[in-house]
Amino acid sequence: MKLFGYFRSSAAFRVRIALNLKGLTYEDAFIHLRRGDQRGADFLAVNPQGLVPALEIDEDTLIQSMAIAEYLEETHPQPPLLPVDPPGRARVRALAAIVACDIHPINNLRVLRYLSRPLGHDQAAIETWYNHWIATGFEAFERLLTGDRNTGEFCHGDRPGLADIALVPQIVNSERYRLDLSPYPTIARIYASCMNLDAFAAAHPNNQPDRDD
Amino acid sequence: MKLFGYFRSSAAFRVRIALNLKGLTYEDAFIHLRRGDQRGADFLAVNPQGLVPALEIDEDTLIQSMAIAEYLEETHPQPPLLPVDPPGRARVRALAAIVACDIHPINNLRVLRYLSRPLGHDQAAIETWYNHWIATGFEAFERLLTGDRNTGEFCHGDRPGLADIALVPQIVNSERYRLDLSPYPTIARIYASCMNLDAFAAAHPNNQPDRDD
Repeated sequence: MKLFGYFRSSAAFRVRIALNLKGLTYEDAFIHLRRGDQRGADFLAVNPQGLVPALEIDEDTLIQSMAIAEYLEETHPQPPLLPVDPPGRARVRALAAIVACDIHPINNLRVLRYLSRPLGHDQAAIETWYNHWIATGFEAFERLLTGDRNTGEFCHGDRPGLADIALVPQIVNSERYRLDLSPYPTIARIYASCMNLDAFAAAHPNNQPDRDD
Repeated sequence: MKLFGYFRSSAAFRVRIALNLKGLTYEDAFIHLRRGDQRGADFLAVNPQGLVPALEIDEDTLIQSMAIAEYLEETHPQPPLLPVDPPGRARVRALAAIVACDIHPINNLRVLRYLSRPLGHDQAAIETWYNHWIATGFEAFERLLTGDRNTGEFCHGDRPGLADIALVPQIVNSERYRLDLSPYPTIARIYASCMNLDAFAAAHPNNQPDRDD
């Protein structure tokens, strides 16, 4: 397996965690997003969407981090990233989607760049935008955690899963925008539990070979 | 089952299609997004995220359209919304995610409103924004369709599935922004195939009882 990623990409970080939790080893291919590698012909041949991650497995190239995580779950069921009961699975997928659909894409590099140019906003306005969507999403996420007895040491029970895989990279990304986690004590507690695990710690941007900041 | 939706919500439209394809009947609860029903205490008790759709089934309330569709697939497997082979399932989920993660959330009502206020952009700038993200996503989507022999009458083979469920509401939504589908002939062809099916046609915003435009 070869993972096309970038140390700072939240979506690639999710896949690194999933691979680590499943105990799978992989080869790295580094796509430097700030230098524009994702728009080069070589990478567009891998992923026409020009985004990381992409995961090459045999003849298949998988894209979209959540689709990749579901694939890993189906092909390597142990340890599971989703509970067995359909309502529980729906809850975990919904929590993951709050981050993967309703926070991260709006705050992604390409969107923040569009706000800067052509729209002409300064860094302060971009930070306000960023933190607005984080707060909107995390307030709901926190309420969904505190209001449900399925919340355990992790988002759902006492085993890390798909919701934690989505949540942790978003928090790490937010640190660059000075996110204060104190309004979200359950999120903060779960984040600490995750970062105690090797699978999460090894996947952290700071521990990637392509780190250059 | 009770579906909390809004005629014009693309995400609620997805769930209406999935329910129709599965042959499931449901009760409607209308949340008028432009009047702000989604921010009322009644609805926030149903979905703390304040977004539609939400689907009440027995004691469970499911949120996030893609998580709801996966739940319906798991609890009512026939007819299937996903193929059986893991790479095929990953492909369909990835196509769906291109719309559900990388187009729709960036062009959602709440984001367009933020561009208007506080950011102060006029309708022309908002339309340019909207069409930029549509074009970026649809160009990749079209290339992923034309470059793969699994593409059939629908996005994956000759049966409508999760990718079609995500794609069609995005196209309908885009009509309000005068989207020209001619650069995307495969998307246009699949859209026509879908709209020939009762499950899609009955779910169209124009055919919802809460339509008020």
